[in-house]
Amino acid sequence: MASLEQTVSNIEPLNDDAMESARERQQSLTKPEGSLGYLEEISVRLAGIFEEPAPVIRRKLVILAAADHGVVSEGVSAYPQEVTSQMVANFLGGGAAINVLARQVGAEVVVVDAGVAKDLPAHPKLELARVGRGTANIAKGAAMSRSDAVKIVEAGIAVAAEKVSGGVDILGTGDMGIGNTTASSAITAVVTGADPDQTTGRGTGVSESGLRHKTDVVRRALEVNQPDPADGIDVLAKVGGFEIGFLAGVVLGGAEARRPVVLDGFVSGAAALIACTLCPCARDYLIAAHRSAEPGHGTVLSHLGLRPLLELDMRLGEGAGAALAMHLVEAAAKCMAEMATFTDAGVSDRS
Amino acid sequence: MASLEQTVSNIEPLNDDAMESARERQQSLTKPEGSLGYLEEISVRLAGIFEEPAPVIRRKLVILAAADHGVVSEGVSAYPQEVTSQMVANFLGGGAAINVLARQVGAEVVVVDAGVAKDLPAHPKLELARVGRGTANIAKGAAMSRSDAVKIVEAGIAVAAEKVSGGVDILGTGDMGIGNTTASSAITAVVTGADPDQTTGRGTGVSESGLRHKTDVVRRALEVNQPDPADGIDVLAKVGGFEIGFLAGVVLGGAEARRPVVLDGFVSGAAALIACTLCPCARDYLIAAHRSAEPGHGTVLSHLGLRPLLELDMRLGEGAGAALAMHLVEAAAKCMAEMATFTDAGVSDRS
Repeated sequence: MASLEQTVSNIEPLNDDAMESARERQQSLTKPEGSLGYLEEISVRLAGIFEEPAPVIRRKLVILAAADHGVVSEGVSAYPQEVTSQMVANFLGGGAAINVLARQVGAEVVVVDAGVAKDLPAHPKLELARVGRGTANIAKGAAMSRSDAVKIVEAGIAVAAEKVSGGVDILGTGDMGIGNTTASSAITAVVTGADPDQTTGRGTGVSESGLRHKTDVVRRALEVNQPDPADGIDVLAKVGGFEIGFLAGVVLGGAEARRPVVLDGFVSGAAALIACTLCPCARDYLIAAHRSAEPGHGTVLSHLGLRPLLELDMRLGEGAGAALAMHLVEAAAKCMAEMATFTDAGVSDRS
Repeated sequence: MASLEQTVSNIEPLNDDAMESARERQQSLTKPEGSLGYLEEISVRLAGIFEEPAPVIRRKLVILAAADHGVVSEGVSAYPQEVTSQMVANFLGGGAAINVLARQVGAEVVVVDAGVAKDLPAHPKLELARVGRGTANIAKGAAMSRSDAVKIVEAGIAVAAEKVSGGVDILGTGDMGIGNTTASSAITAVVTGADPDQTTGRGTGVSESGLRHKTDVVRRALEVNQPDPADGIDVLAKVGGFEIGFLAGVVLGGAEARRPVVLDGFVSGAAALIACTLCPCARDYLIAAHRSAEPGHGTVLSHLGLRPLLELDMRLGEGAGAALAMHLVEAAAKCMAEMATFTDAGVSDRS
């Protein structure tokens, strides 16, 4: 099993030489300087991650972690808890949005039971990593023990490491868990210092009064638990979720293995906040897929200093945004690797 | 040859029944209502265009029109005029950004000589549609005759119609032409009523003083020519460009054939302004790929009421943004066509 401490100490900064070579190469390609905009910046970041100027992205994987949340007993979601396991079955059957979008971009999807309440039937694409059957109700106490929090992060690290060893070039994160935007709002408020009013949204679609109630629940979770913002494991244990901890591990494991991690929406963002609290250096391996319609997600992205590739008002989770954005990340890599230079193509440079 | 007048009268509004069926189908899919955000809106639009609730997009094509501009003699571009024909050779050789991005998304690219100054060697992927070898200098008089303006629009209509008859499901626009952001700034100022200060940008990368000069040239072009904003052909003839007229024709031809037209950046936007002046109904067939870094593009998109799918600060032209956005348009169609419904998947709907 991966050790969290060891992983954190193994994560290194991006490679400056490779990034400098990438910047030079961008200037030689047949286009006006800077005209591919943010894609050029992404290509330079990829160079720093892979430690080569023009890396090729071949195998793509979305890691979709599912878990349940005790806080649903407070009535914070528009959907009943059984939807978590029903949607896992839908992912395994290939009928969910993430399946469609991953197929389109040529990415595999692995579904991880990181703590679903119900027993799930075995399936070749389902990996088990659970250390508990859903969290306890964060409005009344801690979500999980500190040792379980460490275990679930380490489980995420281990799966990311194993997949990269198996040949995966780029990881995307995805989440499923009825109640998990409540936990994510609490995490975001703790880590960024923002008020729960700013970090709490409608999730799968609660009403106006439902939103006020949900915000109160988040506020209560913080008062009851008093998480320490400087201690990512404390935040996760007190107001987190198992899929969130697992995805924090995926971020750390991806960074340790020098692979880009394409972050999906708000819940993945909360996982990234935990990961970057544990290891600020991990941030450079993150590419924000999109800005979701969930208001707290903007707070997460600002705090991490990440610019989203897409702003389509999506709020689905599952890794749907990550799968969509992988096309853009791959586009950035392909332009760098495949475009002709001014010299190659006999095109005159600026006059 | 297609007649402009006939095409304009053939363009019909979107199909309301198909859009209503599409909206109903969206609500039955296994995701919270509205959670795919803008992609759901795109899927409904596609239904209205194709007149079926869940159309499948198979063949994609980017039509890349190239032409030269007499106004380059005013020193408005950072690159010399020969770059237009050199880049056409690069497109045909497969080394430009559009080639990379079109290959990635599985789109064909057809390059059209709509009025390049230099003779281009024959090539199987190059189509000839020119009615002139570049425009005259718009700072001193009209770009082209009124009859040439009609001819180049009709040439675009004809190519779009032919490609759709050949089985193309979705069209993207692309442009190449040193000097064409100057013409586009003039068109945008005329049609939207905005000041040239707002519609003129750095194009391929002129300096601060170059930008002031370019803005003066645009202002002079408007004073000298006095184009009539209500007459799209007059605007095109007086301050337009041949590739712009051709792409206006592609927009009209795509709309007539009931196919979505994915608009690239600023120059394609200027073409859309011409097309929608000739036929306001064509607007509903347009999907804005992105908002470019060129400031006038925002003015175009607001005027047409189009929301861009991407905002990546690109400013390349060539159809690069259109190719990237085709992935998102196809994603919208695929989610609609391939996702399981709540009933199919045995997932509980809202509680």
